[in-house]
Order: sequence, then C-alpha cells, then structure tokens
Amino acid sequence: MSNKLSGIGASNGISIAKVYILDEQPIVISETKTTDVESELSIISSSIEKAKADLLSLQGIAKEKLGEEKAAIFEAHASILEDPAMAEEFTSLVKEQNYNAAKAIKEVADKYMAMFEAMDDDYFKERAADIKDVTERLIRYVLNMPVADLATINEEVIIVAEDLTPSQTAQLNPKFVKGFACNIGGRTSHAAIMARSLEIPAVLGLKTILHDVKEGDILALNGETGDVEINPTDKNEWEKLANEFAKEKDELKKLKDQPTLTKDGFDGFVLEGNIGSPKDVEAVLENGGEAVGLFRSEFLYMDNDHFPTEEEQFVSYKKVVDEMNGKLTVIRTLDIGGDKKLSYFSFPEEMNPFLGYRAIRFTLDRKDIFKDQIRALLRASAFGPVGIMFPMIATVDEFLAAKQFTLDCKADLEKEGHKIGTDLEIGMMVEIPAAAVNAENFAKHADFFSVGTNDLIQYTMAADRMSENVTYLYQPYNPSILKLLKMTIDGAHKHGKWAGMCGEMAGEPDAIPLLMGLGLDAYSMSATSILKARSIMSKLTLKETQELANKALECETSDQVIKLVKELMENK
Amino acid sequence: MSNKLSGIGASNGISIAKVYILDEQPIVISETKTTDVESELSIISSSIEKAKADLLSLQGIAKEKLGEEKAAIFEAHASILEDPAMAEEFTSLVKEQNYNAAKAIKEVADKYMAMFEAMDDDYFKERAADIKDVTERLIRYVLNMPVADLATINEEVIIVAEDLTPSQTAQLNPKFVKGFACNIGGRTSHAAIMARSLEIPAVLGLKTILHDVKEGDILALNGETGDVEINPTDKNEWEKLANEFAKEKDELKKLKDQPTLTKDGFDGFVLEGNIGSPKDVEAVLENGGEAVGLFRSEFLYMDNDHFPTEEEQFVSYKKVVDEMNGKLTVIRTLDIGGDKKLSYFSFPEEMNPFLGYRAIRFTLDRKDIFKDQIRALLRASAFGPVGIMFPMIATVDEFLAAKQFTLDCKADLEKEGHKIGTDLEIGMMVEIPAAAVNAENFAKHADFFSVGTNDLIQYTMAADRMSENVTYLYQPYNPSILKLLKMTIDGAHKHGKWAGMCGEMAGEPDAIPLLMGLGLDAYSMSATSILKARSIMSKLTLKETQELANKALECETSDQVIKLVKELMENK
Repeated sequence: MSNKLSGIGASNGISIAKVYILDEQPIVISETKTTDVESELSIISSSIEKAKADLLSLQGIAKEKLGEEKAAIFEAHASILEDPAMAEEFTSLVKEQNYNAAKAIKEVADKYMAMFEAMDDDYFKERAADIKDVTERLIRYVLNMPVADLATINEEVIIVAEDLTPSQTAQLNPKFVKGFACNIGGRTSHAAIMARSLEIPAVLGLKTILHDVKEGDILALNGETGDVEINPTDKNEWEKLANEFAKEKDELKKLKDQPTLTKDGFDGFVLEGNIGSPKDVEAVLENGGEAVGLFRSEFLYMDNDHFPTEEEQFVSYKKVVDEMNGKLTVIRTLDIGGDKKLSYFSFPEEMNPFLGYRAIRFTLDRKDIFKDQIRALLRASAFGPVGIMFPMIATVDEFLAAKQFTLDCKADLEKEGHKIGTDLEIGMMVEIPAAAVNAENFAKHADFFSVGTNDLIQYTMAADRMSENVTYLYQPYNPSILKLLKMTIDGAHKHGKWAGMCGEMAGEPDAIPLLMGLGLDAYSMSATSILKARSIMSKLTLKETQELANKALECETSDQVIKLVKELMENK
Repeated sequence: MSNKLSGIGASNGISIAKVYILDEQPIVISETKTTDVESELSIISSSIEKAKADLLSLQGIAKEKLGEEKAAIFEAHASILEDPAMAEEFTSLVKEQNYNAAKAIKEVADKYMAMFEAMDDDYFKERAADIKDVTERLIRYVLNMPVADLATINEEVIIVAEDLTPSQTAQLNPKFVKGFACNIGGRTSHAAIMARSLEIPAVLGLKTILHDVKEGDILALNGETGDVEINPTDKNEWEKLANEFAKEKDELKKLKDQPTLTKDGFDGFVLEGNIGSPKDVEAVLENGGEAVGLFRSEFLYMDNDHFPTEEEQFVSYKKVVDEMNGKLTVIRTLDIGGDKKLSYFSFPEEMNPFLGYRAIRFTLDRKDIFKDQIRALLRASAFGPVGIMFPMIATVDEFLAAKQFTLDCKADLEKEGHKIGTDLEIGMMVEIPAAAVNAENFAKHADFFSVGTNDLIQYTMAADRMSENVTYLYQPYNPSILKLLKMTIDGAHKHGKWAGMCGEMAGEPDAIPLLMGLGLDAYSMSATSILKARSIMSKLTLKETQELANKALECETSDQVIKLVKELMENK
C-alpha cells in the first residue's frame, strides 16, 4: 500500500495533523416483524426524547464555540423530531405492518430523503442530509448503539471517517479540527459545503482512507488538489505549502473591506452573495459581499405547511433588507413546480418537469398566491434597496404581465397607506434561451437581468444535468453559452440596464476572466467565493479580459475556450 | 337548434351533399368474470379469424379502388392480429384472471395504445389509432355486433360520424365520399391526416353533429374555416365557394411540374417532402416535391422485433433513392430514446426524457448499432444523391465524432469493394438552441443544416409542447425563434452551405413569407402542403419578404410578428 492517496478536493487549504478516526459501527436493521407493538412504540418515543435532549445539549455547546448561526442546525434537527406527521408514519408502520422500530424509522426516512434528493437544488439536498442525520441518531438510540461526540475534541486533529453528517460537522471546532478526509462524498455533498463554510480543508471520495490509517498516524492533505499522504516523508514540503496557503488566505482576508477593482482600476464590477434564508446574510457580509444578488424565496414555502402569508414573508424579507443596511437585496419570486414540490399543494404530473409548469408560469396562473409575495416584497422595499426578480421568463408578454401585476399591487399598497421604496428595481432571470436571444427587447422593460447558468446551460444544450447519461453536455464554457451571455449583456447595456449572474458559473475562477471580458456587471456567488473573485479581478486588466472573451467567442468547442483561459491565468 | 355549426377545419375544401350517417352502436364491455375459460378463448380465436377475413377482403376492394399504397393499411392491420405476443396477453388475462374475452382484448389494446399515444410523433400516434381500429373490430365480432362497411357507398355523400377509424377512412372512395364531419378530433387526429391525404374536405370536433342531423338532410361544409350548415338556406353561396375552391385546386395542380419561383423570378428555393417510410415517396412526387428533405428512419426500428440489419436497412433506403430517381433524399439517422422506446431494448428511465439520452447521444454511445445504419446509408448513396443527417447535435465535438465515424465506415466499405455515391452530403439537424447559436462554427464542418422546429421551439422556450399547462409557450413566431433561424441560415451561407427546415413550420402558409425573407433554402413538409407553398412563393417578391423578415426581427412578441405577416398576405 502506497502512503499517498488521491481524492476530490472539496475545501481549499493544507493541513498536517494527527488522525482522529471516527469509525462508527454501521447500522444494521433487522427485517424481523414485531410481535409487541406497544413496546416498539415506547422504544420509539423514548429514543426521540433521548435524541432531542442530545440535540439541545449540542446546540448549547455549538452556540458557545461556533456562534448562534451555526448552532441553529440543531434546532432544525430537533424540529424534525417534533414533526407529528413523521411520528404518525412511524406509528402506523409498526401498528399496521408490524415493522420493528428501527425499520419503521428507516422506511419513513428513506421516503423523505428520496423526495428531497430528487431535487436539483443544494438547499433541498441539505434537507435530505438533515433527515439522514437525525434519523440515524434516532435509530442508534433504538438499537442501543453508541453515538459519537465530536464536540469534546481538544487537540489538533484531522478527522478520518466514512462520511460526516450535518450534526457532526456542526460540532467541529475549527480551532482543533484542522481538516477531514472521508471515504465518500464529492464537491457538492453536504460535508463539502460545511467544510467550505467552516473553512476547514477537506478531501472527500478517498474510498479506502478509513481502512488505510491507524491510531497515531500523521496525515497531510491538500484540499485543493485532493492529494493526501499518510505519515508524509517530506514534512517540510507540506509545511511550506501550508504556509503559502495561509499567506494567500490572509491576503484574501485583507480584501474584505477593499473595493472590487481590476488591475487597471476599473471599478464597475460588483461582487454579491447568493442566500437561501435570512441566516445566510451574515456570511455574505463577513466575506465582503457588496449586495445579495439572489435571495431564493423558496425556503419560506418549502419549510412550511401552508402558503406563507404576506405578513410571514414580509418579516423575512425585511430582516434581510435591514441586515444588508443600504446594500441591494435581489429577491427571486417563487421558483417552484417542476421538480420542487410542496407538501400542501399538488402540481400536475408532467413527463418533462424541467420543461413544465413552474416558477413564473405557476405564479402568473395563480395570482392569488403571487399577490401575497409581491405585496410582502414591495413593503420590504421601504427599508432599503430591493430588486424583485422573476424566474423562468421566456416571453416579453410574461415579463410585462408580471411587471404590471407588481405595479398594480404597488398602487393598492400606496392607497392603503404603505410606503414603497424609491430604490425598487424590477428585473428578471435570464435562464431560458429565448430570453437570452431576445434580451435586447426585454431590456426595454426590465431594470436588470440575472443569468441563471444551471438552467440556461441545461436548456441550451437540451441536456438534463441530473441525467448521468448526458452530463458530458453540461458545458458552461461552450461557445454557444458565451454567445448567449454576450447577447444578454449587450442587450442590457444597449438600454442602460445592468446584467448580473447568479448561477454557479459566476464564482468559478476560470469563468470570471471571461465574464469580465464580456462586460458582466454583477457576480453573485456563494459567500465563501467572493474574496477569491475579488483577488482574481485585481490581477487582470479590462483589456486582457476583453481580448480573451473575443478570442473565446471565436472558438468552436468548450475545450478550446478552457485552454485560452488557462493560458491567460497561468502566470497570474 | 341553429342549423349552423362550427368545428375545426381539418382538410381544405367545400362540399355539399346528402348525409350518410355512420352511427355505430357504442361498444359496452361487461366486467363479468368468465367461468368458462375454454369457450372465451375459442370466441377470441374465431373472432380473430373473422376479422382477418374482413381485412383481406377490404384490402382487395381498396387495392382496386384506391391503389396499392392505400390498401396497405389492411395488411398492417392483419399483421397486428397475427402478433403472437398480443394473442398471448389475451389468453393469459382470460386464463389467469378470468377476464371475459372482450375485456381481455380491451385491456391489452389500451396498454399498447397508451404507450404509442405518449409519443410526440404523428407516426406513432397513427400506430395507436391502428390498434384501436383493429381491436374494436375484433371486439365487435366477439360481442356479435354489426361492423360498418363503407366500401359499398356508391352515391355522393358526406359522412357524419362520431369519429372515423383508419380502416374506415381507407375504405372511402373519394369519387363518392365528398366530405366528412365528426363529433371529435382535431387537426392532428388520424381522421384529419387521412382526409388531407385523400383530399376529402373534413370538419372535426363538431361535438353534436351526429345528434343534430337526420337521414335525408343535406350538409354543406367548409374544411378550411370549419363552418358547417345543415340543409343550407343559401345553396348558391355554398356552390359559389365550392367552385372557387375547385378552381384554386386546379390552379395548384398546374404547379405540379412547374419550377418553384418567386414573383420576381428567384429560383433558389427548393420544396421537399417529409416521409416516414418508402411508401410515402409516391405522394411527394405526385405533389411536385423536388426532394425528400426528411426520411425518418425510425419506422425500421420501431416496427420490428430486433435492431434492423445493415441489409434490411439498405433495401429500404435504396428503394427510396431509386424512386426519387436522381432527386436528393435526406435520411435522418436513428432518433430514438427519450419518449420513443423499442420493445427489444431498454433505455434508462429519466426524469426529463426530452433532455436525455436519445438520438445522436445514443448512437455515438452505441457505435455497434450505429454502424449498421451508417453502412446501409453509404451503400444506398451509390444509387442517387443522399444526405445523411444527424439528429440532436448540440456540440461541434459531437458532429465531428459522427462525421468521422461515417468517413471511417466509408473507407471500410470502399476497401470491401462497395461503391459510394459521389453526391453524398453529411449534415445535421438544428433543433437544439446551442446548434443554432453556434451555427457558424458547425457550418465549417457540416454540408447542410435542417431545422427541426418542434424541438427547437420546445428547448428555446423551455416548454414541453405535450404539457397542456405550458402549450401557450409553443410560439413558432416568437422573435427569439426568428433570431435563431437567422443565425442558422446566415451561419450556413457564410460557409457556402445550404439551410433547410423539416419541422411543421416549413409548410405553414404564414411562416413561408418569413422564411423566404430570412433566406431559408429548402422547405420540407407534408406532401400535401407542397403545391400551396409553391403558389405562395409565386405571389411574393424576394424584396418584400426580406422587408417583412427585417421588420419581424425587430418585434418584441409573437403576436406582433403574426400581425405583420397577415398584413402582407391580405391582398395576395
């Protein structure tokens, strides 16, 4: 066995430390039917109580060590345990089908997880991970198995595990936990997202690491390249790398309160954060975000048992606008339907949900539901600059209908005596090819554009990125995509409007030079990518990015474009 | 009750004649379980024999009256009755579930029909109609009900019915049957397709007509507007209209052997036919088609129980090329997967099949299957000009891979001593937005383009036209579609290639002036639309279509574009 392994770099950074082996016994669930329904039910309820007590105590520890925001996950987990619908499903499986307690919990958990995992949305993939985490804890209590407690770690270690659950990562104190290395997972798995948010270096998908290390080993890992070395032969080389990385990180931190400037001093680009709920604002500001470029409003609808009222929505929107303290907040109206369902509303079954009844198509059809959201957004605009953004716009007719509806609601609110912000903008997502091609016409009516790259690429290539048979067609750097971006940006500028991007591409280091060259104005991304983006911009002149973009637009294939970018960035 | 009704004009033409009421007793199927399995099975087999005898005799009558091609449908129907798989399913439902004979047949028929109807393809929708037709005939025999015989009609009539089945329409002699009017159906239903092919005026979707007429009534109908009048008050007016239509039809017939010319004598546009199998060639030539612009090769794969061999395919392709006698035949390689399945091959289940593993994505992945088709196509090219066309091309890489594979097969064949045609062209469908946007680059490598409008519109709008909630977004005249067409055509011309269209739009009277103005070279459509297209072109100067297209490209919405076209065509 070589002492070098290669995995997926999931969170940047270099670490060397002693291993902490987290080797939990795997859960094995018996198929045996129960003959004593009452006793199984009482095991379930006492286990729920134990798990809840655990979570509350973990919440206390986390709050102290990691702050209120990060401790919130345990409250969310406790609320899953308190969900009466789920408890009822456990009970009915035991009562009616004589399932044993563990199997009943597993069955229900699997059903909910499958539902959330089928959605192409990081927010809901996290919900699936939450359910797995909570129900596994519950099953461990049911089966009388030990539950790991990472909050007690008090020396510098790198955790080696099969995988890390949300509650495990939330227990990690970055002061002691210097990294983690897992057998499974990739760049978008829950452990990766948490690692980046906690700024802990991580390498995932290592397959055998848990088997390869033993107590007392030293591990070195590079969270960018995915390289891992057990008991490294050249410790100095690793330490050198670690120092360089730490230096770069310090340099990035210095950019937090700096303006976003190109090498030649152009100050027209704005770096923004994407958020999924009000609690994410803090990270955007901490990382020097200049605005919220995308606030997904779905969380209000999905984590709920009814369509949220105007008042409920207003409270959330106002909270974000208040915290942004004069900086722009762009809120996307409900983007639901297709693969995103609600427990309290039935969408029609469709053969191709990505090409179906969703987002603006749904809300324009159900103005009763739309009205509460538009009114809440308009009222929140009294407290700071707000952009209302409509998703999945395909035709000018749709945009005009949504805009007119908004203006009608505004007139009503004013009549009722509400104040509406003067810095209100009404814009749209550009995520359907028709919108990009026809951008120049949309720009006559919309105040701004924001490109949603995931969908735009998917439709332009006619390839569902969730279907593994055609993922090779998910090509952000394909010249056809760049040409659509150019049409979008040029269309906006022709009518004096701004064009942004809130898809994954906006934060990709390879994409930023191209987007600068195409003239994209606003870049909205995960909070943790903002400082790196600012750094990349500071190393490039406007002219060299424009030359790059012009050459890229002449390319025939995605690979040719990527090669041009790599050549330019090689010596930056 | 008014004597005027309004339905869907499904086949142009004006007729006045006595009604022939086709009022078959509806089939009522009992749910009663059988207690005598053997007797039910014997009823099924004797009914199959009776139905087969019927079909053979109808085939004889039809061959004499309507020609060999139209009689072929009865052979196809007889072969459904001979399908051992279906007979086995009848038997097993009777044996294992004690279904009565009629219910067993209905159950199996419904299953197959649902499978074919789910496909977005006229060819397969016709297959569903065939199964309905044959199994209803069978059930009528099982239940001892009379079966209508339209082949005996020997005076001028207009048939009034609930609906017409394929075998009923194939029995109609256009010499006596002057029209038909049905309660149900629309422009794409089977009865409509057959009416246009037989050139019998038809109005469908009339809802109550079967109830509104009585024996001895005179009916007048306009198959263009959908107007129907029972015992018309102003017969002269109707006769005047009928004469005008007949005159126009005669004028169109004169264009059959005329060149395709604009009013100002431009001869660069080519009118072509779409075909689904070799038997459709005759209609293309009879209607003055100058080429086959789209030969869908799927029929070879779908009406089969194995992937067709190179030799089986060669025979079919050569037949078409021979019959086209020196005129171009463009054959599209296998466009299967997604919603189109094969009985002998399993495609992966996908959440959004329209964005999935299909067409070129499948054949490039399965070169073993692709090879037989490419070799057959290349060998057929020795007998006349052939265009090989790849469907669902999204990236230049894909096109180059498919082209190189074809050239490799060509080299192999030449080594083996086969002759390959010198007029061979290798082109591609433009039906994915990425291909249209990037057309200029594709045109460096492809010999020609053919736009598939159904898919191009669907992807550009991100709207599945089969989903009734979003059909409003299926907008062929949306400026974004026109802009993509312009990019495609300009891209082709920049590199000296030709651009065609083989989607529904190519034959639409309102679309033709726009497409001429955009510079589209080749127009491939249903055979019966060709002469009308030639007539429209003859009434327009190139300059006025170019002015129209330029104005249309400046429009914001679909409605604005349609208005421009209507204004231009008003006095033509």
